[in-house]
Amino acid sequence: MTMDFREVAHPPESPYAQNLDRNAANFAPLTPLTFLERTAAVYPDRLAVVHGATRLSYAAFAERCRRLAAALVGLGIAPGRTVAVMAPNIPAMLEAHYGVPMAGAVLNALNYRLDAASIAFILEHGEADILLSDTEFAPVIREALAQVTRPIRVVDIVDPEHPGPHTLLGETTYEAILEGADPAFVPFLPEDEWQAIALNYTSGTTGNPKGVVYHHRGAHLNAVGNVLVWGMGHHPVYLWTLPMFHCNGWCFPWTIVLQAGTHVCLRKVEAASIFHALALEGVTHLCGAPVVMGMLLNARPEERRDFPQHVKMMTAASAPPAAVLQKMEALGIEVTHVYGLTEVYGPATVCAFHEAWRSLSATERAAKLARQGVRYPVLEGLDVMDPSTMTPVPADGATIGEIMMRGHDVMKGYLKNPSATAQAFAGGWFHTGDLAVKHEDGYVEIKDRSKDIIISGGENISSIEVEGALYRHADVIDAAVVALPDEKWGETVCAFVTLREGAVASESSIIAHCRNEIAGFKVPRRIVFGPLPKTSTGKVQKFQLRETAAKLAND
Amino acid sequence: MTMDFREVAHPPESPYAQNLDRNAANFAPLTPLTFLERTAAVYPDRLAVVHGATRLSYAAFAERCRRLAAALVGLGIAPGRTVAVMAPNIPAMLEAHYGVPMAGAVLNALNYRLDAASIAFILEHGEADILLSDTEFAPVIREALAQVTRPIRVVDIVDPEHPGPHTLLGETTYEAILEGADPAFVPFLPEDEWQAIALNYTSGTTGNPKGVVYHHRGAHLNAVGNVLVWGMGHHPVYLWTLPMFHCNGWCFPWTIVLQAGTHVCLRKVEAASIFHALALEGVTHLCGAPVVMGMLLNARPEERRDFPQHVKMMTAASAPPAAVLQKMEALGIEVTHVYGLTEVYGPATVCAFHEAWRSLSATERAAKLARQGVRYPVLEGLDVMDPSTMTPVPADGATIGEIMMRGHDVMKGYLKNPSATAQAFAGGWFHTGDLAVKHEDGYVEIKDRSKDIIISGGENISSIEVEGALYRHADVIDAAVVALPDEKWGETVCAFVTLREGAVASESSIIAHCRNEIAGFKVPRRIVFGPLPKTSTGKVQKFQLRETAAKLAND
Repeated sequence: MTMDFREVAHPPESPYAQNLDRNAANFAPLTPLTFLERTAAVYPDRLAVVHGATRLSYAAFAERCRRLAAALVGLGIAPGRTVAVMAPNIPAMLEAHYGVPMAGAVLNALNYRLDAASIAFILEHGEADILLSDTEFAPVIREALAQVTRPIRVVDIVDPEHPGPHTLLGETTYEAILEGADPAFVPFLPEDEWQAIALNYTSGTTGNPKGVVYHHRGAHLNAVGNVLVWGMGHHPVYLWTLPMFHCNGWCFPWTIVLQAGTHVCLRKVEAASIFHALALEGVTHLCGAPVVMGMLLNARPEERRDFPQHVKMMTAASAPPAAVLQKMEALGIEVTHVYGLTEVYGPATVCAFHEAWRSLSATERAAKLARQGVRYPVLEGLDVMDPSTMTPVPADGATIGEIMMRGHDVMKGYLKNPSATAQAFAGGWFHTGDLAVKHEDGYVEIKDRSKDIIISGGENISSIEVEGALYRHADVIDAAVVALPDEKWGETVCAFVTLREGAVASESSIIAHCRNEIAGFKVPRRIVFGPLPKTSTGKVQKFQLRETAAKLAND
Repeated sequence: MTMDFREVAHPPESPYAQNLDRNAANFAPLTPLTFLERTAAVYPDRLAVVHGATRLSYAAFAERCRRLAAALVGLGIAPGRTVAVMAPNIPAMLEAHYGVPMAGAVLNALNYRLDAASIAFILEHGEADILLSDTEFAPVIREALAQVTRPIRVVDIVDPEHPGPHTLLGETTYEAILEGADPAFVPFLPEDEWQAIALNYTSGTTGNPKGVVYHHRGAHLNAVGNVLVWGMGHHPVYLWTLPMFHCNGWCFPWTIVLQAGTHVCLRKVEAASIFHALALEGVTHLCGAPVVMGMLLNARPEERRDFPQHVKMMTAASAPPAAVLQKMEALGIEVTHVYGLTEVYGPATVCAFHEAWRSLSATERAAKLARQGVRYPVLEGLDVMDPSTMTPVPADGATIGEIMMRGHDVMKGYLKNPSATAQAFAGGWFHTGDLAVKHEDGYVEIKDRSKDIIISGGENISSIEVEGALYRHADVIDAAVVALPDEKWGETVCAFVTLREGAVASESSIIAHCRNEIAGFKVPRRIVFGPLPKTSTGKVQKFQLRETAAKLAND
């Protein structure tokens, strides 16, 4: 049974409410910045960062972070201003997670898959004063900067692991500003733990992206949350398969330093380089979308290498099918399924494992593991609610509601967007927009995004359920469904599918397949073949599919 | 190199300082109470508590805690009032760590080794309204209550593992109030994370004990700190060899629940029962004073049992000698040395291990391991300073200063004692009163309590160093030294030693032994034989020895 709580204050006449105030000795703001100070002091010679031939000890890494902070201050950055970074998972990006806030500024890690117009929007809206930019992205950044009206100082990152060309956009390079900076710079800590540390833009599947603001307290607690969820010991070796522009690499730039581990950088996420790191660097932990698992499982023999250690991988987004989980286990990699959003520092729920599940069949176990699960220890509240009444749904595995969250895992709000912030926090909970059921054991399972649900004759149809049925057709490699406006039923289902190369499945054969899989009213009425439109982060752009479906309905 | 920091505020014109305030969705007070809610919800059937034949699942344990909170409220406890507990490490004591604060009250765990007068002082000063008292301690509690002027409601804990007699002092028993209480009671959370959660009295080696107040934020962070320091995974099996009245069992009642582990209770700390728990309950972690190690190493063959698992033990107080560490390793128990005080929630420093130390000789390694080490990740500041100037001593392993601490690990202050609080926090640091050096690697090593240092001819003499030399004499089993007033040198050293049974070492032979061990001016001038006077927590009462030494000097 989940407990409810009510808050209580100690009255002023309580002896505990007298003469026992905060002071410099007994109170410090929570921040992840002091993790680096401690680890560099205790383990100065331990390996902090691996990047190709580059190996940085914690003493060297901490010095580079201090130099970066000093250089940014030297370039004129003021407290509470923004420093943007456009770079893959390289040391400069890790250093920015410390150096930028150590200068009192806020880190805005940019999604390097975005187009110039989106980047321009973010640079304008996020008010970046300085941009650290890897030369690989010089063309798109040049185009973006041409669309930005405000002055931005560009510092070029010339990474030796990038084969080139190295087109320089600014007047100085990253290594040059570090070289000229004071290694004994005294870093800034936040005076208030609620101060912003990072700005991360949502992927904007609808309209302009929103700027999600994280604070020092949340970054500290979420970095710790990762340790707790994984039961992580000291000195992990962490492989950077998850982009750091995603929710600050889900806060692992701070977690790994807290545990005095090693960051193994990766400019490009490819099967061969992942196996190389597993075999030669002794990687123990990694995170990534299901596509990374696919990459490993479908690797060619010459890309593979054996590794002796037990490896843990966290995966978010869609739930891994049973077959994938089994193959990953055979490879020596234990997969933990988590779920979250940019607004909650990345993952905020975990499908916490139960020993009893080991005795289930592989399919039954996969069904358990596919669920989004329970709250992170640092998320104080998680429930599935009817958003109109804010009452929790019963734990029956059937009643659909919206996933609501509150606590340490939840953002400060959206930058310069008080109405969106107020809407997201309506009723004292963060509204995820994800529709789910609550199972008898309290585990949450997502059924759909609220805007993706299809309502046919008053019945809810989960787009995820229909897409699952489509995926089980042997010829389908990609699938998405949206509502097809219908005079009689209000909406019916329209499916968009991509077939594997050479396959020739017909519309009627796919519809027949679905009839065997799901209830009749959920079966797609129309099948459209072809590639699916996607965002830079790989999410299907359903609003485009909806437009196509609307046209089909009018035909 | 240790980094310094300076605080910075984001100015009001920063976009991050606008419209991004705390609210019910994105802010929750830190407290360890929600650990229990989460673990009971996620793992209701896991084993929470073992006590003799009693086995409580997390669902049952959480229900008992809710019942306790409801019962306390029913007995009239008000928010911000005190509930005292006099009990060994039994389930009721664990339940009090949740049930008392879940009633909005503050837990005062009493040291069951105290005499009636000391207990009376604490009950009076701590303003306990309710006392939960194990029947084993009925005689001393009855005597204490006779000396207390304020009304205290007594609830008797009748533990079936106590062989009796069960003398009842109150009108009701612990099980009776739980039985009659609402299992669906909605627990209280602190409105402010700075609210008090516990009150722990110092052992009072000089004068009256002081009431150290802990808050919810600190209890949460220190419980997490234990996980971080030990690199603790999920589901530890923790043996209760450390009394819970010591700094709330160093916060492990909360740590173990956070990690969904099992508490193995222990009414009496004896070799046979410890080995029994190691072998039959699969204990993985325990804490305790060096005396517990001695108990294990000196156990008789019939008390011993084999156990297959690797076990971790934390020990505080005096540093374990090389021989003890080696024998513990041979037993399968890895020892971590920590250091702290009641004022800092128990341990606040740890001798963090370095792989490179494995290649040292056993003696060299023991010398490294005997140090008090570095700060806990949740202690933001640790240094050794000249207390008169508050400047750090050089990291030379030689210059003595006072250990200073600040951050999350530091108490709210002393209850109803603002002058002692102000003195303890003078200059923005908590003054530990322990004298230490800082080694080149930044590790701190205690040389003495500030009041125990002996100054002879202007030279500091560490009482710990002289006592170490005495302990290395084969016939000495207990030793303590204090200053002997001296006309010429100001002070010289006076030693008090206890010889092992049957030993007949003379004063001159012990002095001769010391001449081979330490510098001449540090060698004791007088040796007094006999048992040493100790406090209820086993600390030598040096003030008594000083009185004896003063008499000797006047003779």
